[in-house]
This record gives sequence, C-alpha cells and structure tokens, in this order.
Amino acid sequence: MIAEIITIGDEILIGQIVDTNSAYIAQELNKIGVSVHQITSVEDEREHILTTLKEASKRADIILITGGLGPTKDDITKTTLCEYFGDTLVRDPQVLAHIESIFAKYISTPISEINRDQSLVPTKALALHNEYGTAPGLWIKEGEKVFIAMPGVPFEMKSLIQHEVLPRLIKEFKRPFIYHKTIRTYGLGESAIAARIESWEDDLPSHIKLAYLPSYGTVRLRLSGKGLNEEALKISIESEFEKIYPLLSDIIADVNGENEDITITIRQLLERKEMYLAVAESCTGGELATKFTKNPGASNSFKGGVLTYATQSKEDVLNVPKSIINDNSVVSGAVVEEMAKNAKRLFKSDYAIATTGNAGPEKGDSDAEIGTVFIGIATPEKVFSEEFKFGRSRDQVVNKTVNKALELLLKELLS
Amino acid sequence: MIAEIITIGDEILIGQIVDTNSAYIAQELNKIGVSVHQITSVEDEREHILTTLKEASKRADIILITGGLGPTKDDITKTTLCEYFGDTLVRDPQVLAHIESIFAKYISTPISEINRDQSLVPTKALALHNEYGTAPGLWIKEGEKVFIAMPGVPFEMKSLIQHEVLPRLIKEFKRPFIYHKTIRTYGLGESAIAARIESWEDDLPSHIKLAYLPSYGTVRLRLSGKGLNEEALKISIESEFEKIYPLLSDIIADVNGENEDITITIRQLLERKEMYLAVAESCTGGELATKFTKNPGASNSFKGGVLTYATQSKEDVLNVPKSIINDNSVVSGAVVEEMAKNAKRLFKSDYAIATTGNAGPEKGDSDAEIGTVFIGIATPEKVFSEEFKFGRSRDQVVNKTVNKALELLLKELLS
Repeated sequence: MIAEIITIGDEILIGQIVDTNSAYIAQELNKIGVSVHQITSVEDEREHILTTLKEASKRADIILITGGLGPTKDDITKTTLCEYFGDTLVRDPQVLAHIESIFAKYISTPISEINRDQSLVPTKALALHNEYGTAPGLWIKEGEKVFIAMPGVPFEMKSLIQHEVLPRLIKEFKRPFIYHKTIRTYGLGESAIAARIESWEDDLPSHIKLAYLPSYGTVRLRLSGKGLNEEALKISIESEFEKIYPLLSDIIADVNGENEDITITIRQLLERKEMYLAVAESCTGGELATKFTKNPGASNSFKGGVLTYATQSKEDVLNVPKSIINDNSVVSGAVVEEMAKNAKRLFKSDYAIATTGNAGPEKGDSDAEIGTVFIGIATPEKVFSEEFKFGRSRDQVVNKTVNKALELLLKELLS
Repeated sequence: MIAEIITIGDEILIGQIVDTNSAYIAQELNKIGVSVHQITSVEDEREHILTTLKEASKRADIILITGGLGPTKDDITKTTLCEYFGDTLVRDPQVLAHIESIFAKYISTPISEINRDQSLVPTKALALHNEYGTAPGLWIKEGEKVFIAMPGVPFEMKSLIQHEVLPRLIKEFKRPFIYHKTIRTYGLGESAIAARIESWEDDLPSHIKLAYLPSYGTVRLRLSGKGLNEEALKISIESEFEKIYPLLSDIIADVNGENEDITITIRQLLERKEMYLAVAESCTGGELATKFTKNPGASNSFKGGVLTYATQSKEDVLNVPKSIINDNSVVSGAVVEEMAKNAKRLFKSDYAIATTGNAGPEKGDSDAEIGTVFIGIATPEKVFSEEFKFGRSRDQVVNKTVNKALELLLKELLS
C-alpha cells in the first residue's frame, strides 16, 4: 500500500515555513503499514497542482494533500480538485453548522460570506470533520484510489489524521505490516560503525533494510522491514537485532521501538526512581529545557530550568560565586559544576544538567575557543563535568552539546 | 531561472526527521532571484532517484540534491548520479587530503578505506569543498543545466550553500530580481483580513502576488514580485504596500523586508534603548527563551530566563509567595505578574515576559480550563497581565502564547 504526500503552498517553496506536516503524516502512516513513496511540495498554482496530482495517482494508492484549503484567494486546492475530478462544489449543511459554532464560541469578528463558503465541498467528496478549524478535510474515492485533502495548519491536520483519516484508511485498505527497530549509538562515526558491522550488513535478508541516521554526535541505526506475516517479520528483525547488538554493545545508549526520543527514555527512568531533573543552561540557549517539555507529561520528572545567558546572571540567578568565574573563566568545569549543583539545590531536584560554552559565531564573555563546551551533571551522590570541542558551527555546537548532555545523564541513570 | 530541490533519504519518508534543509535552500535561492518550483523527497532507491532526476531536469534549470552522500551502504546518491550521467568515479586528491586532515584533527577513530573512498567523485563533477565534513559537494554542469549534490547534514549543507553554491550560481546564471515585503498582523483572522482588503487585492497587478501566512494568532501578509528591473519592481511593491497599510494599520505589529523573525525586531528595539529582557516561563516550556537565543547576538539584549515548570519551583526559584499562589491559583494574573516582576529583579533586566497556563492535554496543578493562559509583562515603569483562551490543542496553546507574548512586548517597546 503506497502513499504520496503533496503539500501545496508558496510559503514552503520560498522557505518561509518548514514543512513539518509531512514528517508527522509519514510517521502515522508507517505505524499502520502504509509506506510513503514520495513527498512533493508545489506552489499554489493550478496547472502545477493538476500535473502533480496526475503523476502521484500513477504511483500511489493513497494521495494525501495538505494546504491551500483556507478561505482566501490564494487557497485554490478545493477548486483545483474539482477541476481534476470534473466536479462542482455544493454546500454541506453539517460543515456550515460547525463553522457557525466555531465563530460563535471562539472568534470575536462576525462571520462573513467567505467563512460560510468554507462549507462548500466537491459533490464527490466526503467532508471530514475538522475539530479545530473551519476548513473541512476532504476524502475523495476514485476507483481503488483515495485522495485526502487537509488544511496545512499543523494542529488541525493532526486532529484530522487521528480522528478521521487513519480510522478510515484502516477500515478500507488491506495493509502489510511494517516493523522498525532503532538503536541509538554514541561516540563512533557513521563510517566506523559501518566498518564494524560490514559482514553482518552484507548478510541482511532482502526484506530488511538498515539505515544510518547521524545527528550531532549520535548515530541511530534503523532496521526496518515489511511483510504480510506480522509475527514472522517481528521475529526476523529481532533476530537481526540480536546479532548486531554484541557488535555495538559498547556504544549503544538506547534501544527503542517506536519511541525515538531519548528524553522519553530519560523521563521513564526518572519516573521509575520517583526522582526529578532540573537544567541550568548557557550556550544551549533553552534547547535542553524545551526538549524535555515538548511532549506532555514532563512535570512528573522535570522541575524546570534556568537559562543564564549573561555571565552576570550566572551569579545573580544561579549564585555561582564571582571568584569561581574570575579564577576559572565562565567557560570552565568549575563554573558548570557550580551551575549544576546550584540548579539542583534551587529546584530541589535529584539530578541536574548544566552547560556552558562558546557556540559562536563570535567569542562571548570568555577567551575559550569557539566550540569549547563544558557539561556538568549533578546526581544524588556527586557532581562532575567534562570538556568537549564541538567544532565551529553554531548549530553543531548547540545540538552536539544537547545530545552529549542527554547521553551523560542517561549513562548516570543506567549506572 | 527555475530550481528544484530533491532530498534523498528514507528517514524523511518514514517521518523520522523533518526536512529543514529545503526551506533553508529555498530561502537562500530566493534572495538571489532563483525561484524553487518544486521540492521532492524520495527514498534511497536507485530507480526512483533516476526517474526523479529526469523529471526535475525537464522542469528546472538548477537541480539541487541533498542527502545520500555519506560513507555507508545506504548512501547511493553518488553512484546513482554516475549512472544518470553515464560517468565513472575517480579519486580527487584535494578531497582526500581534506578528509585526512579532518580525521587527524577531530576524529579519534583511525581513517578507513570507507572514509578515503568519500574522495571518489564523478569525472564530470567539480568537487565542492565541504568545510565541516568528509563528503564533498558535487557540481555537474550538463548543457545549460546544473546538478548540485550536497550532504544532508544541515550545517555541512549550509556551509556549502554559502561558500560554494551561491557564489557559483551568481556567476553562471542570469537571474531576475525577486522582491518580498511582509506585514505581520495580530488580532484578526485570515478571512476577516481578506474581507477588509478585498477590492485592493482584486486590483493587484499580475506580477505581484499576495500570500496569507496564518500562524497561531498572527497572520503575515506577503507581497512578492519578480522582474528584470529591480528599481521598478521595488517601486511597484512599495506602492501597493502604501495602499494596503492604511487598511490594516490598527492590526499591523511589524513590517519587515527580509527579516521575518519578530524576535529580531524586538532585539533591535531593546539594543537601541540599551535595555535588557528576561523571561519567566511555565506553560511555554522554554520556547520563549529558545526563540530569543536561536539567532546569534542575543546576549546584547537578552539576560536569560527561568522555566518554572513545577508549581513548587515558582516559589523556590522565582520567589512567588505561596499565599499568592494559594489565593489565586497558579494559573492567574496575580501569579504571572509576580513571575514577571521577580524575573526582572532576579536577572536585573529592564523588561520581562512571564507565562502561566494549562497547555493540556491534561489539567496540571490548577483547575483552570485547558487553553487558559495568563501573560505578564514587566516594563521599567509597570507590570500588567492579560488572560487568554487559546483552544484545546497543546501545540496551539504553546505557540499562541509565545506569539501573543511577543506581540504584547513589541507593543510596549513601540509605545
């Protein structure tokens, strides 16, 4: 069962927004055994959309479209779909009632004709209920294929995928099983790992694929397979995993099935211990804290954090003694250990992570070379720090610091 | 001059990573007058890559490819390009020297044959220097068209774009001028804005396009045009801007040319006043702080922030009196004003933003309905707060809170 995703909107093609919708849709489809074969982003342009729809329908069984369903003149997805299917628009009274209720409840401006016209849908389409917005999703079945149009606003799209699209796809399409297993490694580069596992990789059965996913100091290895027999597929992938594990055991930090996010693993370990984490950041600029709160439920293991971007704030807010800063420089092991220790005390947590460093592009309040980073970890028993050189690119320094800090904390939690 | 971007890699199609590279490339090409017509993401699969290259080359003059240049077996971009051009690989001694120097300087594992083989490039290709990595970029000219392959690692790709790709494109291609003007509005929905400016929009000359970019409580309107005469293009877009401004003046928060990021505007205003900002976050989970430090140079106007995710931390770290929390609930105007006031004091800043609310999906330490948010602003003269209802989706609540907080601060800075 093959799907393609088409995103419609100039804003992606001029780079004004990053297309996060496609990754979400692809993830969700994968879970139910639908593979995404291609993602195509095109402009709000009639001709181009028509060609893209035609080409996609040659390759895929399920075509998912996002964007261009808004109420304004640059939103042409609905009329273009009508043209593609030789269809016309009719008012859907249920959709109209929903639009009117959203305006009554949440919107202070009066409802207009433009808003009411969002209830116009192609006669061949089933309107899908958009809980959070005024533009309905569209489900158009043609022969064995289905075309699904959704608004581009991420939370509206996500709700449509969960409550309307996935249940319908599961009901209407017979799908193979897809199974992934991901191993997160630290400390070795992609090619060094490849050299280690070369002969194992050469012997992989053809229905199982291996992908290397390097990212700022960590490499994830993803084994994935597809098959009609769920049990057999799972067994064959798990047996390959049993073979690869001993080859990499010294560098494996985390093994996940679906759960790719290392902060989830950390949160689970903390919750099991009934312990809490706090963070004290400098060069990571809030990224560590944001990473922990991204998924709901963080408050069961995460107290919060301090971002002391200015050197002075390390004294004022984190109570790092001025003498320690002066004697060691603000980018130092002594300072980062004070930060971790004091964050732990301040937040009454059990663990704390602290970062200080020069992320560049210019040197800040210290003479440390760009890329120099100290990470401090406070545990219930001890405080320690390590120094790293993370290269010259700002992105790289920030992201490698975040990943390394999470690795160090995970090791402590597992030890 | 039309470009297309092709990203190669299963990880995008299974949703394991979000494609941020394409937005970056598109933005940079736009600045030099090259339009991106389509972005296509395909798997690490020979046949599919060959077809995509062929189709893209029919539509575009410049084909940019990212991904699949790594050293491992799943990286097939280079060999597939060879097959596409009927070419073979030869060793590039300069690239080899660069790889060896990177290993000598930064990598602790010994260099292997797999690493050395990254210096193999197609004979028809010019190898582009990859400052931060071992995989060279490739520049292959065929007739009037050029194919450019780059690694998928974002900071390697960005450096290649800046130092190798853009300078070569500017030299080799004659390009039209592209001009954008973006207006950021607050407080009115997309369709209400459309109704207000309908007759103006109907009269827009055909070489100018208007796009509505709604995002969590703010709508950006982007005027864009393309032309061979830079001066005439600029004048025509600025004259349309002069017409639209009075229609929207009550809801315009910010007018930018290239600079789309409201935090940059805020930072510029603070720097001009020689004043500093701090933040105290709860429901926004660190997003506000991260937003301010995303771009370098934040330390000239931003002291830092506190994320008090746990209620107890609001007392422990931000010194919000227990009585105020108990008398008003942790999600209240009284608490958020204390948070703002105390963050300002703690960080010795001039302004502070604070947030508290229930982002969902479950109720936390307060009885406030999901979506209820209080934003507090402390200025050199006063402290105030406002209450908002931001709906039921977690994404929406967090992002609307961040945008609204920035709007409130911007208004204060401009008043």
